[in-house]
Amino acid sequence: MTIPRPQALLDQLVTATRILVHEGVMDVFGHVALRDPSDPGVFWLARAGAPARLTAGDLLPFDLDGAPLEPTDAALFSERFIHAAVFRADATAQASVHHHAAALMPYCMGGRPLVALSQTGAWMGAEVPLWDSRASFGDTNMLVTDMAQATDLAAALTPGRIVLMRGHGVLVTGTGPEDVVFRCIHACREAETLTAALTLGPVTPLSEGEIALAGTPAPAAVRRGWDHWTARLPGDTTYRKGAQ
Amino acid sequence: MTIPRPQALLDQLVTATRILVHEGVMDVFGHVALRDPSDPGVFWLARAGAPARLTAGDLLPFDLDGAPLEPTDAALFSERFIHAAVFRADATAQASVHHHAAALMPYCMGGRPLVALSQTGAWMGAEVPLWDSRASFGDTNMLVTDMAQATDLAAALTPGRIVLMRGHGVLVTGTGPEDVVFRCIHACREAETLTAALTLGPVTPLSEGEIALAGTPAPAAVRRGWDHWTARLPGDTTYRKGAQ
Amino acid sequence: MTIPRPQALLDQLVTATRILVHEGVMDVFGHVALRDPSDPGVFWLARAGAPARLTAGDLLPFDLDGAPLEPTDAALFSERFIHAAVFRADATAQASVHHHAAALMPYCMGGRPLVALSQTGAWMGAEVPLWDSRASFGDTNMLVTDMAQATDLAAALTPGRIVLMRGHGVLVTGTGPEDVVFRCIHACREAETLTAALTLGPVTPLSEGEIALAGTPAPAAVRRGWDHWTARLPGDTTYRKGAQ
Amino acid sequence: MTIPRPQALLDQLVTATRILVHEGVMDVFGHVALRDPSDPGVFWLARAGAPARLTAGDLLPFDLDGAPLEPTDAALFSERFIHAAVFRADATAQASVHHHAAALMPYCMGGRPLVALSQTGAWMGAEVPLWDSRASFGDTNMLVTDMAQATDLAAALTPGRIVLMRGHGVLVTGTGPEDVVFRCIHACREAETLTAALTLGPVTPLSEGEIALAGTPAPAAVRRGWDHWTARLPGDTTYRKGAQ
Repeated sequence: MTIPRPQALLDQLVTATRILVHEGVMDVFGHVALRDPSDPGVFWLARAGAPARLTAGDLLPFDLDGAPLEPTDAALFSERFIHAAVFRADATAQASVHHHAAALMPYCMGGRPLVALSQTGAWMGAEVPLWDSRASFGDTNMLVTDMAQATDLAAALTPGRIVLMRGHGVLVTGTGPEDVVFRCIHACREAETLTAALTLGPVTPLSEGEIALAGTPAPAAVRRGWDHWTARLPGDTTYRKGAQ
Repeated sequence: MTIPRPQALLDQLVTATRILVHEGVMDVFGHVALRDPSDPGVFWLARAGAPARLTAGDLLPFDLDGAPLEPTDAALFSERFIHAAVFRADATAQASVHHHAAALMPYCMGGRPLVALSQTGAWMGAEVPLWDSRASFGDTNMLVTDMAQATDLAAALTPGRIVLMRGHGVLVTGTGPEDVVFRCIHACREAETLTAALTLGPVTPLSEGEIALAGTPAPAAVRRGWDHWTARLPGDTTYRKGAQ
Repeated sequence: MTIPRPQALLDQLVTATRILVHEGVMDVFGHVALRDPSDPGVFWLARAGAPARLTAGDLLPFDLDGAPLEPTDAALFSERFIHAAVFRADATAQASVHHHAAALMPYCMGGRPLVALSQTGAWMGAEVPLWDSRASFGDTNMLVTDMAQATDLAAALTPGRIVLMRGHGVLVTGTGPEDVVFRCIHACREAETLTAALTLGPVTPLSEGEIALAGTPAPAAVRRGWDHWTARLPGDTTYRKGAQ
Repeated sequence: MTIPRPQALLDQLVTATRILVHEGVMDVFGHVALRDPSDPGVFWLARAGAPARLTAGDLLPFDLDGAPLEPTDAALFSERFIHAAVFRADATAQASVHHHAAALMPYCMGGRPLVALSQTGAWMGAEVPLWDSRASFGDTNMLVTDMAQATDLAAALTPGRIVLMRGHGVLVTGTGPEDVVFRCIHACREAETLTAALTLGPVTPLSEGEIALAGTPAPAAVRRGWDHWTARLPGDTTYRKGAQ
């Protein structure tokens, strides 16, 4: 079977990855997955490789068991099951990102929950869940490498579309590539604010009412974020040259 | 009605925005507004968009109710009322910036006030006010989206020309584009110093007498800041090429 | 005696150094040493110089007493003995790096041990040893300048291949240039996570079982890191130009 | 009177300034002064201006009262007296830098002294003095603007060649441009280490014996630093192009 390549989507996946690397969210380990717009049972993900070298040619289609839909001898990300479980569990999820952002890693160690503090972080909800692989799977190699683990992880996602993984990293989902990038970056900003605010004194989180009213990221805000971050990419000359 | 375009001012607005992005003050959400030099009832502000892509062509004139003075079908910043209220409340304000700088966000969470510690931050005064939308407006979506909220916010400004917004961001005003940029950047520097100093031990703030004597930013210092930050912009080749 | 120059290895040594400088691990003081692939009694190290100016032409062969194997009038690193002792003590070590990374220096001051917290830091083991020159050598100039000191330091290495040096810096070894670069960078990331996590509350370290299962860095992960970091180097155009 | 222009020295002053800006030590406010090699009663300093725009043509000769030795209508740094007092008080000082580095500002607030922790910071001595203008001069505008204040400040310098100024910034002196740049940068690194180390637990400072043995920066180390930092400057192509 050959899956038609949704080229515009694949280009967005590459751009999303480049943004996340450039804005300090993604390092060596991390990947962006996007659901195929014409077949909800298919998602696209890179073969195993360095995010900074990703090209559209590296992208492969997978089914919702995490199996590649084309014959390939490429090495695959062992954690591809995370995305399969996300797309299986949540029909509204069109995008899924796993990363180890420095800003969020401290909240993966159990000391204190990440909470929504500000207008641009309200979408995370009153408290971001922390999934611990030990609860159901005992000692592991700290990777999510099968559907059982991935399904357990995806079940911890709340409407806030983010879950922290103890001793490991983060899973963020979205309604599309622009939405998931917005959430990835602003979750980091929110965490940085909280970490610093806690050194100053007691923190006032958003109220339940404020969280409800601030709601999910507005499409215009999400679009503006994408415009902003693409302008900052090394390959874009708009910002570099000081368009005026 | 067509408002004559004060092109030099509009170019300064673009440059101010580029400086604030490049120096880490402004991210996706933020905007610079400048009062029209020939009509104090008019100010210029971009249509809604990413700061990193701003050009002078995106700038529109607004009246002091926050209404655009030219017919436009562009999306507008929902928080444009902030600037309208600033220019209405303070005849000496020629510039107004709203931003979410990482250095200042921790002080928007209520744990401890931001205080003036050093020569270059003395203009902020003994304590920067923290405006909380809940006090007068209860639960909101954490945006300032009408004149009532904006007027309440602007009334919290002190001679220090800066007010923090709980769970949201910062408002800084100035006597011109160079002055407001100076204040935006040095407020961040002062906050960074305070955050770190508090981890070391009790902090000695400036005395009342020192604050009075250090006073407002000197025009020469403000001008020097602008010269420094423009030299650091990617589009400027002076610094990049190592002028000698 | 003239030692044949293993040019591919020497190029890797230069690249490893450039990565470590670019990723913020190595500053002025630091050096990478690689064992000669055709003679385990020989290692290659730069003559004394600035890491940012290193070229393959600066590399010299040394024996396992830290003596240069070719006549040279170049200034030599006074701490070259560190690498000699590493290669003498551990037949599996093919690479050795000494550096003063900002992320790790705080753990060289005795206040708290560096522990493995996450999947990508599990290789460090449950606790990174802190070697203190005062224990065996009393007051020194805080440099490791002879084989006696270097041998004592190298003996503190555990299977985690990293040891902190009190009041000085870090020693990391590896099974090759890619492996040691991976360890250098991820030790910094782990330390940054721990430092921030400790401000949030009690930290949950990896369990013994998790450390055992996560094990040493996987060759594929190590290779991916090298691919990622070389793509980010200023001299590489893949990432800069936004390959797509 | 016309003072012969020591062009090589003036070029070094410009390079030193560019390094300090590029490495994050100097921001808008700061200046480098160098004593004239042929007349110890003369030093060179820029007219007032932005460090990022400094060229050798901006440099003027001053006497040890801080008066310009050539007729000029240029604006002068109000704090030029600092350098006059340094060169008057210490015949071995050939270089003097005043800056407001972010890493050191927290130590200017009185909460805790800056102490030498590591090999590359031992030259600072067991404790860096903190000069407070209020002790002798009461409330001021927090600038050092006459010889009386500058002389009092310079008298607080110890053999460590660094003094912190409460609520203001830092003064560092050196035996030449390379030496003072080394001290400026490594004082920042030491402060960053201490700030982070204090969040981990009690810190072990260097012993008196270690400080004595580590001594002042070695000429080879100082030279290596200059080589490293000049290679990193935007105007230098060695590092950017990945010399190999």
